[in-house]
Amino acid sequence: MLSLADLQRRIELGELSAAAAIAQSREAIDAHENSIGAFVCHTENARAQNAGPLRGIAVGIKDIMDTAELPTEMGSPIYKGWRPRADAPVVTMLKQAGATIAGKTTTTGFASVDPTATRNPRNLDHTPGGSSSGSAAAVAAGMIPLALGTQTGGSVIRPASFCGVAAIKPSFRLLPTVGVKCFSWTLDTVGLFAAGVKDLAHGLSAMTNRPELLPDGAMRAPRIGIVLQDFAGAPEAAGGEALRTAASAAERAGASVRDLALPEIVAEAWRIQPTVQDFEAHQALAWEYGVHHDAMPPLLRAKLDETAGLLPATYDAAREVAKRARDALAAIFEDVDVLLTLSAPGAAPKGLSSTGDPRFNRLWTLMGVPCVNVPAIIADGGLPVGVQVIARYGDDAGALAAARFVEEALTTS
Amino acid sequence: MLSLADLQRRIELGELSAAAAIAQSREAIDAHENSIGAFVCHTENARAQNAGPLRGIAVGIKDIMDTAELPTEMGSPIYKGWRPRADAPVVTMLKQAGATIAGKTTTTGFASVDPTATRNPRNLDHTPGGSSSGSAAAVAAGMIPLALGTQTGGSVIRPASFCGVAAIKPSFRLLPTVGVKCFSWTLDTVGLFAAGVKDLAHGLSAMTNRPELLPDGAMRAPRIGIVLQDFAGAPEAAGGEALRTAASAAERAGASVRDLALPEIVAEAWRIQPTVQDFEAHQALAWEYGVHHDAMPPLLRAKLDETAGLLPATYDAAREVAKRARDALAAIFEDVDVLLTLSAPGAAPKGLSSTGDPRFNRLWTLMGVPCVNVPAIIADGGLPVGVQVIARYGDDAGALAAARFVEEALTTS
Repeated sequence: MLSLADLQRRIELGELSAAAAIAQSREAIDAHENSIGAFVCHTENARAQNAGPLRGIAVGIKDIMDTAELPTEMGSPIYKGWRPRADAPVVTMLKQAGATIAGKTTTTGFASVDPTATRNPRNLDHTPGGSSSGSAAAVAAGMIPLALGTQTGGSVIRPASFCGVAAIKPSFRLLPTVGVKCFSWTLDTVGLFAAGVKDLAHGLSAMTNRPELLPDGAMRAPRIGIVLQDFAGAPEAAGGEALRTAASAAERAGASVRDLALPEIVAEAWRIQPTVQDFEAHQALAWEYGVHHDAMPPLLRAKLDETAGLLPATYDAAREVAKRARDALAAIFEDVDVLLTLSAPGAAPKGLSSTGDPRFNRLWTLMGVPCVNVPAIIADGGLPVGVQVIARYGDDAGALAAARFVEEALTTS
Repeated sequence: MLSLADLQRRIELGELSAAAAIAQSREAIDAHENSIGAFVCHTENARAQNAGPLRGIAVGIKDIMDTAELPTEMGSPIYKGWRPRADAPVVTMLKQAGATIAGKTTTTGFASVDPTATRNPRNLDHTPGGSSSGSAAAVAAGMIPLALGTQTGGSVIRPASFCGVAAIKPSFRLLPTVGVKCFSWTLDTVGLFAAGVKDLAHGLSAMTNRPELLPDGAMRAPRIGIVLQDFAGAPEAAGGEALRTAASAAERAGASVRDLALPEIVAEAWRIQPTVQDFEAHQALAWEYGVHHDAMPPLLRAKLDETAGLLPATYDAAREVAKRARDALAAIFEDVDVLLTLSAPGAAPKGLSSTGDPRFNRLWTLMGVPCVNVPAIIADGGLPVGVQVIARYGDDAGALAAARFVEEALTTS
């Protein structure tokens, strides 16, 4: 994979030109794109910028994010060839930091569950996960050092786990969702994919102009609470192994590790997350569902058909549960620095008919807390399985620092 | 003015056809639009629908809201002739409830402060206020019974006060802002303009499928706390008179009325509201400001130039103040049902060079609480001045019920 931090260091030292770094990505895309199918379209004659911390960094943009110079098709024929007027703010933030937009990456239709044809670079017979399928696959295949995705249920952390890359779903609204096709306005969160945790930190810091997100050199052993999410059912063998492996490695490296039970209201929040998501999706996609019903992605359309009767009062009650759960979760972070839990039930499922199950992700999107995927083990078939490190709302720096600690512990153990 | 509730009643009784109601709006637009200039464009051959609670209701849509069948120009040449692909969800909600889109109403550039050429129907020498200038003016001139606007600082309640119409800025996100040009994602709120409070209730209830928002017949005397917002400076004579008049009328009608001091943290929230607004505007409008700097509305551009150095840490601190203020405000609503305060410093300023001052509005947008403007007095020059009734977050039904009580008290006093 292409390490953003490594490229940045070499460019700053003058060992590599920004133009050569962009050319390297272009060559990697030419070499791998045919077998992976991570992109919807490419920037023709993509050029490096001369300045900015992300000069020489080629970035993939999930195709539900508005771009003025490239089509934005939402993974749906309803938006075939659609050209927005403006760049989404996250795209402008990348350009202002010096990055080069390499192209648009594949997304399931409207970032829901209908799969793309994208393949998992670790094993072409398996899904890369979704909905940010192309972003995870393009980074995993070494085509680009950075990609943007979004998560409403588990659309950033799960594909990162399946593809063996690092990813962060930051605190809710750390990155603006303006100009990003909405599925659920209280859940949709823009996230980043990169080779390693340090690369995420450098990318997110440059985009947001927040130096506190950069690693500070010192590696402090975090207090870790292990969370099984029993309410979401048992993981597969590989998922359980990934979590045990990461916990052991962190403990050996000096972290304080203990099991932690979540309060009942948090389990209740897990149960009502689909109510919030479905109610808002009916409003956010009302035009598409009403005017282009037949052209809607079939699995999404079936889901919307099924949930058409959701009442405002049910939604209001669900949001109240979410609020109480967020308060309860905040209290937990008085005793631990981060939580460590499953990124997915197991390795990427075989075939391209499903993008996998978001059941270990959706609670954390609803809670709005920062989550970082760290690759933990390689299971059968060469398929990676990750774990997620979760910090309190607003402590993205803490989530990244602890994730780097776990990543380092796994590498050296 | 055209009363939505009255039209609805007559259509339901068969006294008026939906088609005749739409024709009536079309004729009123033909009669008044030349002198007012409330619309950017009109739906050609707008037709009535046959079903739905809002059949026969012609609605004006602020021109920062996406419409698939009409241009959406954001009050700026940067979006000249721009045609979005989809309707914003609030537009679809109106259509699904049976309403007919009459056209797009004028907005200050990007819903900021650069005035439109729209005139105040109560006195053509005065501004209608902004940023939802055309929506307030079109309802005030009797052209349409319902219009949508948005408020980030004071862009719904203030123009309603200046034009002498009822308006509601509902609880934050009761109406989705998806497909509405973003200025500030933690502040932007979609609101409604109509002739009277009952009309607002019928419109909002039909859009949201929330029957609890409809008046229930009983008129209960609310416990009212009078709030002066000293931190925002003193009002003009007419503003103060409007508040005293409304408070006295409500008290005579049986309401319990008392003065109420807001805690210091709430005043602090008023002070930091511009930080939240400006920081987010820099991100939300980054493409326009960066790529089309020279074409930006000049007052908005100057404001963005001035605030370009705002740091993320300053923004984070401001959001923390807002959170604490929301908690403090919630506690106040344990002792009163609603607050009654100024909708604007006074009557609409003369001339079209300013849309007036949002200083008595911006706190309440930041707090996310429902606010209803009720016209209270007619000042010199035939210019109306309103007051705003404010309820706790989520209690839009309570805000509407208390506003109707105040409106009724003012009518009969």
